[in-house]
Amino acid sequence: MNDDQKQRAQSIRFGARGDKAALEAGAGFAPKFDADGLITAVAVDAVTGTVLMVAYMNEESLRLTLACGEAVYFSRSRQRLWHKGEESGHVQKVVEILTDCDQDALVLRVDQRGPGACHTGYRSCFYRAVAVAGDEAGLRVVYPEKGYDPASVYRSGKAG
Amino acid sequence: MNDDQKQRAQSIRFGARGDKAALEAGAGFAPKFDADGLITAVAVDAVTGTVLMVAYMNEESLRLTLACGEAVYFSRSRQRLWHKGEESGHVQKVVEILTDCDQDALVLRVDQRGPGACHTGYRSCFYRAVAVAGDEAGLRVVYPEKGYDPASVYRSGKAG
Repeated sequence: MNDDQKQRAQSIRFGARGDKAALEAGAGFAPKFDADGLITAVAVDAVTGTVLMVAYMNEESLRLTLACGEAVYFSRSRQRLWHKGEESGHVQKVVEILTDCDQDALVLRVDQRGPGACHTGYRSCFYRAVAVAGDEAGLRVVYPEKGYDPASVYRSGKAG
Repeated sequence: MNDDQKQRAQSIRFGARGDKAALEAGAGFAPKFDADGLITAVAVDAVTGTVLMVAYMNEESLRLTLACGEAVYFSRSRQRLWHKGEESGHVQKVVEILTDCDQDALVLRVDQRGPGACHTGYRSCFYRAVAVAGDEAGLRVVYPEKGYDPASVYRSGKAG
C-alpha cells in the first residue's frame, strides 16, 4: 500500500459500541476487538464462497484494509501487521467485508490473486478433514492437489 | 445429546502438537486451543458454503461435537457449553469438520436445521456489509430478508 492509503486509513471512523439492539440492527459499524485488540477475520473466495483462511485484525489493520482494498491482517505469531501477499504476491483483493450480529467477527469476501491463500501450496488452508477411527481423531486430505510449489514462492520459509 | 454420546466423547483422543511439518502434513489431529482454552470454529452451510456464524470451542465441546454429530460450542459470554439449537431447535448437523494448516482453527460444514443460524432471524449472522461513506464506516443489510421471527422461537431472549 502507498502513503496516501496509509494516511486515508487514519481518517476512517468506526461507531461507538452501543447496546445489543443498536449493534444488531443499527447502521453503525462498531467492531469489537478482544482483550488482545484483535477481531477474527475469515477470508472466503468471493466467487465460490470457499473458506480460504482464518486470521485476525487489529484496529490498524482493519483501517488499512478498508483504505487500500487488500487484506491486511495482524499476525499473532509475528506480532506485526501482515499485508497478505507481501512476499508471495498472493494478495487478497477485498470485494466485500461482512460483520455478524454482535460485530465481533468479520468475513472478507476476496478475490484471491495467485494460485492459493495457504503457504503450504493449497488454495485454502482448510485442506484436511477430521476423521475419527476408533478413539483416535486423525486427518485426511480432502483437497485434490496443491496449486503451486511453495518453495518456488517463499524465500524465507514464512507465509506471506 | 445422550449419556452414551457424553461417555463416547471422553474416549476420543487427539494427537500431540508436533513440529510445523507434522502439523501441516501429518495425519494426526492436534487442535491448538488458545490461552483461554478455545479454538475458533466457523460454521458454513454444507451445501451452499455460506458462512453462517463464527463461534468458539473448548476441548470438551469439540469432543462432544465429534461424539454426537451436532455442533456444540463454548459460549464466551455465558462461559458454558452451548449445544447450538438447544433452545431454538435449530441444531447444526455436522457433515464434516475441516482444520487449517497449523490446526488452530476449524470449519464446520453443517446441515443447519430450521430457518436460520442467527438469533436475530437471519439465516446467517453475517447479514450486513461494511460501507464507508466519507470517513464514516457504516453497515448496510445485504441479506434479503429474515427467515423467521425470533420472538416466536426464543423465550429467554438469548441465542441458542
